[in-house]
Amino acid sequence: MKLSQYFLPILKEDPAEAHVISHKLMLRAGMIRQQNSGIYSWLPLGLKVLQRISQIVREEMNKSGINEICMPCIQPADFWIETGRYESYGKEMLKIKDRHDNDLLFGPTAEDAITDLVRNNVKSYKSLPLNFYQIQWKFRDEIRPRFGLMRGREFLMKDAYSFDIDEESAAKTYNMYFETYLKIFNRIGIKAIPVKAETGPIGGNMSHEFQIVAESGESTIFYDANLDSLLAKKDNFDIEKIKSLYAASDDIHNETDCPIPTQDLKVTRGIEIGHIFNFGTKYTKAMNCTVQDSEGKLVHPICGSYGIGVSRFVAAIIEASHDDRGIIWPKSVTPFDVSVICLNNKNEETVQLANQCYDSLSRNYEVLLDDTNESAGSKFATHDLIGIPIQVIIGPRLAKEGMVEVKYRDNAESIEVKIDQLNDLIQKH
Amino acid sequence: MKLSQYFLPILKEDPAEAHVISHKLMLRAGMIRQQNSGIYSWLPLGLKVLQRISQIVREEMNKSGINEICMPCIQPADFWIETGRYESYGKEMLKIKDRHDNDLLFGPTAEDAITDLVRNNVKSYKSLPLNFYQIQWKFRDEIRPRFGLMRGREFLMKDAYSFDIDEESAAKTYNMYFETYLKIFNRIGIKAIPVKAETGPIGGNMSHEFQIVAESGESTIFYDANLDSLLAKKDNFDIEKIKSLYAASDDIHNETDCPIPTQDLKVTRGIEIGHIFNFGTKYTKAMNCTVQDSEGKLVHPICGSYGIGVSRFVAAIIEASHDDRGIIWPKSVTPFDVSVICLNNKNEETVQLANQCYDSLSRNYEVLLDDTNESAGSKFATHDLIGIPIQVIIGPRLAKEGMVEVKYRDNAESIEVKIDQLNDLIQKH
Repeated sequence: MKLSQYFLPILKEDPAEAHVISHKLMLRAGMIRQQNSGIYSWLPLGLKVLQRISQIVREEMNKSGINEICMPCIQPADFWIETGRYESYGKEMLKIKDRHDNDLLFGPTAEDAITDLVRNNVKSYKSLPLNFYQIQWKFRDEIRPRFGLMRGREFLMKDAYSFDIDEESAAKTYNMYFETYLKIFNRIGIKAIPVKAETGPIGGNMSHEFQIVAESGESTIFYDANLDSLLAKKDNFDIEKIKSLYAASDDIHNETDCPIPTQDLKVTRGIEIGHIFNFGTKYTKAMNCTVQDSEGKLVHPICGSYGIGVSRFVAAIIEASHDDRGIIWPKSVTPFDVSVICLNNKNEETVQLANQCYDSLSRNYEVLLDDTNESAGSKFATHDLIGIPIQVIIGPRLAKEGMVEVKYRDNAESIEVKIDQLNDLIQKH
Repeated sequence: MKLSQYFLPILKEDPAEAHVISHKLMLRAGMIRQQNSGIYSWLPLGLKVLQRISQIVREEMNKSGINEICMPCIQPADFWIETGRYESYGKEMLKIKDRHDNDLLFGPTAEDAITDLVRNNVKSYKSLPLNFYQIQWKFRDEIRPRFGLMRGREFLMKDAYSFDIDEESAAKTYNMYFETYLKIFNRIGIKAIPVKAETGPIGGNMSHEFQIVAESGESTIFYDANLDSLLAKKDNFDIEKIKSLYAASDDIHNETDCPIPTQDLKVTRGIEIGHIFNFGTKYTKAMNCTVQDSEGKLVHPICGSYGIGVSRFVAAIIEASHDDRGIIWPKSVTPFDVSVICLNNKNEETVQLANQCYDSLSRNYEVLLDDTNESAGSKFATHDLIGIPIQVIIGPRLAKEGMVEVKYRDNAESIEVKIDQLNDLIQKH
């Protein structure tokens, strides 16, 4: 992608309306723009990150054998009346009337809608366990939307739902999601601590939150130091062991009751990015969703729901990974792998070498070529701000010798290399 | 994917509520389920096709240098009041009030919202031409939703918007979209005729519809027979020549005025799947969106909008490509490339060979393994219904000799081959 043709409305100053770092940086880096209160347009750079996170979530959910579906944004009130949530959900639900005066709503979640789908299409225990997920826009009418994507109104969520024939099977399913979540966080390269949680208004008997570790996190997390090594894996997690170790956020943790000694306790701050629930037969009973068991008896499936805030994830990664110059993207979700920065558009050798680098790197990587007429200083500031992990800087002095400067965004170190060493160097990073 | 773990709720009978073939087949093949009037859930098989079409559209739009963004579903009424469309759009707009009594709506289209984004972020002619697209859910509150996805209420649309400094540049942009659309249709492998269209409520001075050729199409299309060869290309289309040839649908065509002789006229039926407009300064003037031109004067950019009904596309392909046994997917958008059908789950040799085929083909293709306990007849009916282009059928008789039957969905021809010839054969298809 050539920057001259890319819509990247950079802001040089911190916007007055932004109070948290991710909101400031997403506005300044031209990733998002507010359309109206708590509702954002995703611009090209922001959307690319959103899509990369979605794709990692999708691939890991698919590997776990969960069926991807896509339910509508608009749901009928009927389902919610059946489960008793139409009133109890409160004013965060965006209620709507259509032209025929039917009661609709913009789904804030979909336990009710998926239970309707299953009761109409599944008849036998032979079809269970059954797992579904979708990555779809949700709406919650926050009374005071703030902190950009951290507490917006329209947001992208991965929501998953499980149906099992009995508690034993449901417990296995719960652990399967637990493990899938750990794989997602590890693949993205972001540390998340699973903490026991209250089940709250969804109800049920087991629940964990996944908290991304970030200094600016909204809650304080207290956890057993032994968790660190158990979580620092790619797969084969010992879920039962992980669940057995102490981890709690400040709304549950109590110093005097804490079951582990202070020297084993780690304290950090976290941003909630995922939440998993087992809520039993709450909705299948309310909506009379049944299947025949192996003896022909009608039973209500045991259910769970499993969320990841995909748009919130973008903001949480920035909260966890930035410095005073801007964003530092993990390789897994960066919108571009490499920036090629041409420092002088009037020097023919420089332009030629920049184009050569761009063409050659584009065969293996997503590359952003800065071919604008901005000053060198302004270009450096832009590429530091938008956080691309590797910058290939090309100026007249080095270009004469067929050389370029390679600078790493995370540690600001740089080296000068011959152009033919470039591909190798980037591959090794 | 193993069918035993896949959510594919096949219906053996035509559902009573479906009156057009695509609606019947999408319900029977377990691609969609109606949630409420005109609003559908996409089940795994349907979603896969929707995603494949979206991805082809995305890739071709990206190749044309159009910026992908994602605007919210929910828009403020304010923009629409500025353009005068809040009242004029009529009852198809789903109007909403939030908890603070603000007027919102579920976007049926986004000319107003994109014009707001541009007026706030673009100041100079140097940033033009500027092109945006999104693939996002829309809502139009049809008075009588019918024909499944052909006239639903919530639907997935690719909508694009252009901003040019003058008419000359806008005309080039219009042709660029025209050509991108032809590339999309050709890559999907579906014939579409571009016909001149009235500009209607969006306004403006130039407009074409793209009509997919299908016997069951809603309109009759009359066009110059010379168009066929001009459209049957992959790229390098002669857009001016194509635009100059006669093509009109029945709402415009008039036998007595028709400029070409009857023997040059082809008549077919079509389903509108795309629509492109140049509407000049209609919205930039109404919303006071200006940029500085090269002389420092403030001017209103010339705009266009360009739609493709992505969810409607799924239905239109089925209307254009099916037989009495079910859907026949073009290779470009098929949810799976190959079905491997194991005819006997109790015969060890058969099961082993089926698994071997599945593992080997899965390295290069998306494969659906039918490992269910259904009868052979029921399996054949299912795979014909869901329209996978190639079926690899494995039964005890052939398995003994390490052979399989390969059957093509389109012409029902089949051959028996050694398993080691399978990959080659499928690649050649």
